[in-house]
Amino acid sequence: MTTPTKQAHRPATVTTPTDREIRAERVFDATRDRVWKAFTDPERFAQWWGRGNRVVVERFELERGGHWRYVEHTPDGEVHGFEGRFREVTPPTRMVQTFEWDGMPGYVSVTATELVDLGDGRTKVVTTALFHTPEERDGMLTSGMEQGMNESYAALDRLLAR
Amino acid sequence: MTTPTKQAHRPATVTTPTDREIRAERVFDATRDRVWKAFTDPERFAQWWGRGNRVVVERFELERGGHWRYVEHTPDGEVHGFEGRFREVTPPTRMVQTFEWDGMPGYVSVTATELVDLGDGRTKVVTTALFHTPEERDGMLTSGMEQGMNESYAALDRLLAR
Repeated sequence: MTTPTKQAHRPATVTTPTDREIRAERVFDATRDRVWKAFTDPERFAQWWGRGNRVVVERFELERGGHWRYVEHTPDGEVHGFEGRFREVTPPTRMVQTFEWDGMPGYVSVTATELVDLGDGRTKVVTTALFHTPEERDGMLTSGMEQGMNESYAALDRLLAR
Repeated sequence: MTTPTKQAHRPATVTTPTDREIRAERVFDATRDRVWKAFTDPERFAQWWGRGNRVVVERFELERGGHWRYVEHTPDGEVHGFEGRFREVTPPTRMVQTFEWDGMPGYVSVTATELVDLGDGRTKVVTTALFHTPEERDGMLTSGMEQGMNESYAALDRLLAR
């Protein structure tokens, strides 16, 4: 049985530590190793990141300097490509990667993802995204990012519950 | 006859408008159209950018969203890859592109290149690079960037004089 109501009650805690950053915190009911796999195994990643939309992972070279690229297909036929490069990959605790959406090419943010083992079988995921300018950061904030992230994380809850 | 002495007397004017930027200004004895071609035609670009080192242009999609990648081969066998994506291409006056060196993957700066027609057959080139952090900017400043740029621009002088 799915529990959409409960999931909707677990939004990520989104803050803005500086005028060029967005920080988000969210706890998942799964061990750090399982959460790490959900973030770094292309097949698993594709199952939750698109919030139900089809995601095609075209490139996913999980190592320092490696490139990644995935393409989201929306039900109404829109195609959105995203890409970047890994700056740091330290399993199972931390990775840092650049992020760029095809719709705004050349606008690159850097996201650090940290997985904190809470010691009780749960894992806290902390993402911090840094932008080149406050305007780019604000553009991301008003793009519906927070709702999209919460939908993705709810899908990740469902994946981890299987 | 080459004129290395004269060229050495024309260094770029390098300033730091903010703690995350590097601005460089340099005048070339050529029309804006010719300077634009030297910056945007892969074959010509490869002739001056490497300061005498061989440069292989692997990708050069000169349009918004297009990718570029070139690889410099030094005399002692070192290989340095550089890549990025075009944010804006407005011939013959302005282009904006991201810049990333393979040696520090995931550290991305954005460079705007503006070509100013001085009206007397000369062209002023102004580049402004923006980094994510002051530390990344300072790392670039202390990397020998200024000397390298001056050597590249001296090679561009020679190309434009042909």
